[in-house]
Amino acid sequence: MSPIKVAIYMFPKADVLDFTGPAEVFSAPDPTFSKPPFAVTTFAHHNPVNTACSALVYVPNATFDEVASKIEEYDVLVIPGSSEEVLQDLLDSQAGKELVSMLQRFAAAPPRKEIGKRVLQSVCTGAILVAASGVLTNRKVTTHHLSFNKLKEVADKAAGGESNIQIMKELRWVDGGLNEAGVRIVHAAGVSSGIDVTVFTVGHMAGEAQKKWAAEFVEFEQRDAAWGVKA
Amino acid sequence: MSPIKVAIYMFPKADVLDFTGPAEVFSAPDPTFSKPPFAVTTFAHHNPVNTACSALVYVPNATFDEVASKIEEYDVLVIPGSSEEVLQDLLDSQAGKELVSMLQRFAAAPPRKEIGKRVLQSVCTGAILVAASGVLTNRKVTTHHLSFNKLKEVADKAAGGESNIQIMKELRWVDGGLNEAGVRIVHAAGVSSGIDVTVFTVGHMAGEAQKKWAAEFVEFEQRDAAWGVKA
Repeated sequence: MSPIKVAIYMFPKADVLDFTGPAEVFSAPDPTFSKPPFAVTTFAHHNPVNTACSALVYVPNATFDEVASKIEEYDVLVIPGSSEEVLQDLLDSQAGKELVSMLQRFAAAPPRKEIGKRVLQSVCTGAILVAASGVLTNRKVTTHHLSFNKLKEVADKAAGGESNIQIMKELRWVDGGLNEAGVRIVHAAGVSSGIDVTVFTVGHMAGEAQKKWAAEFVEFEQRDAAWGVKA
Repeated sequence: MSPIKVAIYMFPKADVLDFTGPAEVFSAPDPTFSKPPFAVTTFAHHNPVNTACSALVYVPNATFDEVASKIEEYDVLVIPGSSEEVLQDLLDSQAGKELVSMLQRFAAAPPRKEIGKRVLQSVCTGAILVAASGVLTNRKVTTHHLSFNKLKEVADKAAGGESNIQIMKELRWVDGGLNEAGVRIVHAAGVSSGIDVTVFTVGHMAGEAQKKWAAEFVEFEQRDAAWGVKA
C-alpha cells in the first residue's frame, strides 16, 4: 500500500504539543520497521515558524502553497490551535483566508480511491480554525475546555446564524463522523489529547495492529474507549 | 523570583516528543499569566536540527557552546533519546564527548543559590546518554522498555565495571534522588512519559500550584502517584 499522506499545518504561536504529539504518533514505524504507513509533511505560510513555546522554532517541510494547491492528494489534515487572540488574528489575515479556503476544499473532497478514507483532524483550539471554514455546522465537536464559547461564536459566524454545533465536554476527543463527501472530521480536546485522537486516527486509517503498535511505541497509555465518542 | 532556567539539548534524529512534551509543560504560564516560572532554551551542535520525525525540523535557540560553556547557570537540563544506533554514533563523535563532559559538569555543580535545586532529567533513551557520563552509578533509573540492556551496558562501561544501576521497569518515570552535589537526577520511561516526569519536575522546582496549573493547562491526566517512584 502506498503511504497514507498526512499534512500538518503550522503557524506562528501555534501550540507545540498540538502538532508534535500527532506527528510523533503518525511517524511510528510499522511493526516490521519496513513500511512506514504514514508520510508526514509540515507546511506553513512562514519559514522558520515560531510557536507558542519560544524554545521550539520549526523549519516546515513545504510552503503553504505547495501543499494547499494539491490538498486533495493528502489523506489526513491536522490543524493545531493556539490562544483565541492568535487564532482571531490569523483568521483576519490573508493567510487565514487561504487556510479557510483550503479547509473547505479538503472537507469537500471525497477520499482518494487508493486509500478510501479521509480525515480532517483538529487539536485543541484548532477546532476554531476548522469551524471558521463552516464545515462543522450541525456536527459534534470539542476543543480546549477554556474555549467552548469562542468555538460556538466562530461556528455561528461561519454559518451565518445558528450553527447547531454540539460541543462535547469532558472528553479527550470526539469523532464527529462522516460528512457528505465521506470525510471524517475528528477533534481532540486540549493539547496533550492530540495524542489520543491521533491514536484513533492511526487505527482508523491503518488498522488496529498499527494503532496498537504506535501506541506501544510511544508508551502511550490507552484510555478507556469511553474517552472518545462516536458520532 | 527569577525564572528557573531550563536547557534542552537537541541532536539529529532525536525523538521529538521526548523534548517537545517537556518544553510544552515547562512553558505553561503561571496561573496569573504574569510571571512565567521557567525560561526554556534549546541548544544543539547543529542548526537546523533534524529529528527522528522528518516532518519536524528545529532551529535551536543557542549553539551547544553558548549553553555548555555556562551550564552551571541552568537549573534543569533535559536530555532526550533516540534509537540505540543514533545514540551510539553520537557518543562516539566529538559532539558526544562534549555532551558527556557537560553532563558531568552539570551533575557535579551544586544548585544555584537563588533557586536552591537542580534537576538533571532524561527522557526515554536519553538515560543512555546520561549513563555514558558515569553519573548514574549505584542509582535508580529507567528508560524506554526496549532499551534496558543497552542502558546497563553503557552504564557499566562508564563505571569501568559493574555500575550497580537499578533499572526500574513498568514505571512511567523514576526519581533517582539527590547525588553528592545536591543534584536530583530523574528519568522518564518512553517518549510520552516525558510529560509525566516534567509535571513532577515542575512541582519540585516551582511548587504544587504551578504543577497543578501546568498539568491542567495541557489537559494532562494526572496518573496515580504510584506511577512514579522516589529514591
